[in-house]
Amino acid sequence: MEQVITIKEMRAVIVSFRQKGETIGFVPTMGFLHEGHCSLIREAARACDRVVVSIFVNPLQFGPGEDFVRYPRDLKGDFEKCLSAGAHLLFLPETREIIGENSGAFIRMDRIMDILCGASRPGHFQGVATMVLKLLNIVQPDYLFLGAKDFQQTVILKKMVRDFFMPVRVEVMPTVRESDGLAMSSRNSYLNPEERKSAVALYRAMKKGKEVFLKGERKASVIKPLMENEIRKESAARIDYIEMVSPETLVPLDDIQRDAVILVAVWIGKTRLIDNLKLS
Amino acid sequence: MEQVITIKEMRAVIVSFRQKGETIGFVPTMGFLHEGHCSLIREAARACDRVVVSIFVNPLQFGPGEDFVRYPRDLKGDFEKCLSAGAHLLFLPETREIIGENSGAFIRMDRIMDILCGASRPGHFQGVATMVLKLLNIVQPDYLFLGAKDFQQTVILKKMVRDFFMPVRVEVMPTVRESDGLAMSSRNSYLNPEERKSAVALYRAMKKGKEVFLKGERKASVIKPLMENEIRKESAARIDYIEMVSPETLVPLDDIQRDAVILVAVWIGKTRLIDNLKLS
Repeated sequence: MEQVITIKEMRAVIVSFRQKGETIGFVPTMGFLHEGHCSLIREAARACDRVVVSIFVNPLQFGPGEDFVRYPRDLKGDFEKCLSAGAHLLFLPETREIIGENSGAFIRMDRIMDILCGASRPGHFQGVATMVLKLLNIVQPDYLFLGAKDFQQTVILKKMVRDFFMPVRVEVMPTVRESDGLAMSSRNSYLNPEERKSAVALYRAMKKGKEVFLKGERKASVIKPLMENEIRKESAARIDYIEMVSPETLVPLDDIQRDAVILVAVWIGKTRLIDNLKLS
Repeated sequence: MEQVITIKEMRAVIVSFRQKGETIGFVPTMGFLHEGHCSLIREAARACDRVVVSIFVNPLQFGPGEDFVRYPRDLKGDFEKCLSAGAHLLFLPETREIIGENSGAFIRMDRIMDILCGASRPGHFQGVATMVLKLLNIVQPDYLFLGAKDFQQTVILKKMVRDFFMPVRVEVMPTVRESDGLAMSSRNSYLNPEERKSAVALYRAMKKGKEVFLKGERKASVIKPLMENEIRKESAARIDYIEMVSPETLVPLDDIQRDAVILVAVWIGKTRLIDNLKLS
């Protein structure tokens, strides 16, 4: 597995793949990889001739006071995981080069970037989309692999690719969970043992919501309070939002007669966790 | 010369060029082509194996009350000009497909999109950059050819390509002028004979400014009023702005000790014309 730092080197390796007619799968990450990331890399290795993984803690997607500085990093562990999951090329861009002197050019989407996680984290999705656009232009992959845990992110990036006619296919892979149901996330490493136990409340609440839905309840105004009760059982938990939304538009639904997805964001102590579950 | 309307067809033709190892030059236009456009097409034909010209009057770059509806169109004439200038492929996208149901995703750049022409035409450059990004993703050219007459546009698009690491080289070709110095523009067709005579004031003013500069004057506060006087000699003319700016950042300069460019925007009757001239 090769490691590349500069954009120039990256382009050269990509050209060499292309000249051999090889297809390229791309998995963008912020590192501190877990089984969720590894499942994306394995799927990319199954579907494509070459797998590029980028590791870059993107300052553009962190707000002031957020966890950019303390975001967990483990390059050695990441290297091993990429290797054993089947990656061929690790891209480790430097902030100076990939952000540049000014970060004046960016991607905006009205509404869809400003709701849900975007309401709690102003500028977050603008930073995500701008960085993924840059990475896609550098790596020029055939396939982009994303994890379903960051549901709003997948909707925004699929929209970016579609609206801008980017020549890449987006594949969203299922959330990987711990045995008790907690969605894998690099941020789970922030949790102390007590908080770790409380964190399962997100999954429990979504399961409760889905159970009530499957029994025939269609009113979000009935289902949401039942989910909120599940979260409130944990004293360390504070709800950021719980919504049932249309999976394409993220518009909140009250009467759930079509496809819908439950989205939750909950603070466990000082750690903000998100999760989602499809209703249907 | 082939004509293509759908993005799907376009991609297929581009793939066929690529498979033959041919380089692609791209000239995006809004049609009603003049000698300025033709010079871009000829240069593209000189530098690249294949030349793609797009003709699309982009609604995203017109504000409310601007001339979108009456913008001049002449597809038959354009076809002949493209053919004789050496284009291989004409891309005529449909609004429904290239703008789509929603135009929610767009490119933003702070400051540089909001000054000069951006101050007079809010949203204009956002519409330009967003459309050019879409076209670049569809055509995937090696070279993008732009005319220097739209100076701010060239700065913004070069910045977009650079900041987003788009795999394309931008070539800016010199402004083509009528024999009296008026910069060629599709919008010159709006001018009645009287206004057409007045319109040369833009060039005359810039020449005056450059002449004073070349004689040693370095203060914009001295040079600008002399240029304004030239414009004011024409009763049909109303100044939108006259500035001397840094060519990379578009920051207005007062003491002109390095490279600078004169930018002018002037209303001639109901027609807004722009032009520019390098000082040095």
